[in-house]
Amino acid sequence: MAEIPLDEAMRTLRAVRRLRPDPIPDAVLRRVLDAACQAPTGGNRQPFRIVVVRDHAKLARLATLYAEEWRSYVALHRKMTEGAPEAAREADRRMLASGDHLADHFGELPALLVFCFDPRQMAITDAELDRISVVGGASIYPAVQNALLACRAEGLGCVLTTLLCRREAEVRALLGIPQPWGTAAAIPIGYPAGRGHGPIQRRPPEELAYADAWKTPWRVHDAD
Amino acid sequence: MAEIPLDEAMRTLRAVRRLRPDPIPDAVLRRVLDAACQAPTGGNRQPFRIVVVRDHAKLARLATLYAEEWRSYVALHRKMTEGAPEAAREADRRMLASGDHLADHFGELPALLVFCFDPRQMAITDAELDRISVVGGASIYPAVQNALLACRAEGLGCVLTTLLCRREAEVRALLGIPQPWGTAAAIPIGYPAGRGHGPIQRRPPEELAYADAWKTPWRVHDAD
Repeated sequence: MAEIPLDEAMRTLRAVRRLRPDPIPDAVLRRVLDAACQAPTGGNRQPFRIVVVRDHAKLARLATLYAEEWRSYVALHRKMTEGAPEAAREADRRMLASGDHLADHFGELPALLVFCFDPRQMAITDAELDRISVVGGASIYPAVQNALLACRAEGLGCVLTTLLCRREAEVRALLGIPQPWGTAAAIPIGYPAGRGHGPIQRRPPEELAYADAWKTPWRVHDAD
Repeated sequence: MAEIPLDEAMRTLRAVRRLRPDPIPDAVLRRVLDAACQAPTGGNRQPFRIVVVRDHAKLARLATLYAEEWRSYVALHRKMTEGAPEAAREADRRMLASGDHLADHFGELPALLVFCFDPRQMAITDAELDRISVVGGASIYPAVQNALLACRAEGLGCVLTTLLCRREAEVRALLGIPQPWGTAAAIPIGYPAGRGHGPIQRRPPEELAYADAWKTPWRVHDAD
């Protein structure tokens, strides 16, 4: 894999939605897939599979499903962000424009990575709680993140999408995914058509971490 | 952060369960938390918070809950792996021994990172499907994986655990986590007491990736 320091990879991993149709060499794609395979999973069972979709007819069908879901998302999103401050709305407009581009060109992607999972191979410790479950994701999304970081290292644009999960029955039929396997994410990848990866905006630990109790801000106290 | 190539970090990130009680400098801990904060989340909403638990009384209480759940897990695990081949059982014995060590010393951890999430800030696209949901995890576990990789870079042992989710009501009360926030993972971190990180065993893309259709093995075809 192209050598990149871990820290730089994490700090410059953007959601890149403007992707060129140019093919990705198998050796490059293998390094991305291999990075996913290195991730931790419960009991090291690796209860995921990655369907690499490059077939044009299948991508065209997925593009139709994706575009339908994208349009619904945009309508809902516009309603939810109506009163947002101007700065946030500007960032939003850029996201929506690049999202439109992805939806319009989904069928021309050089590869789409569909992450599937087998709930039978997972100990889902929040399955019985009185809230929506997320813990199955602990054996899938670390692999997804490794794949995204590897894309960053390889100069491949990528973005974590989950909209196609709404159309899981159709995706399953198209790719032959058997029950009870589910789909957890679809990662469009390709060489960037625009700026590609680069610096990102994130809230820091001082806003997102607490010390021993909720709402007690975590702070650096010592001097090293 | 200590400079380490991305690829090396991913390939040597072990589940390290034997941890020393020695304190972690705040500056080191901040780099781990900051790595988590860099991860992608849906709409960049960062719908997670990390409660950094270092208070001895709280760790002692969490240790009791963790040990109870660990013992249940071990009993179930032993039953499920009874007929496994000898090689797998040997790896298993090592995992269980280090897991026992973690459970026995949970109260002496220098820090436990409890990852919490707010389902209201997530578009959970598989919430209505007729299977268990995982998609909420797409905005949590990439951050968890970044934190684990940053621990690896810093020479801190760490392991992704989800057993405490079974005791979420008690964890929520202890740390003051309000409804409807949930808990997604608890990451014990500390300097390794044993060998720490190093090479790992994983199945490769040739076993876990498919080409365009289920069970069609993905293969490298071109020559670069």
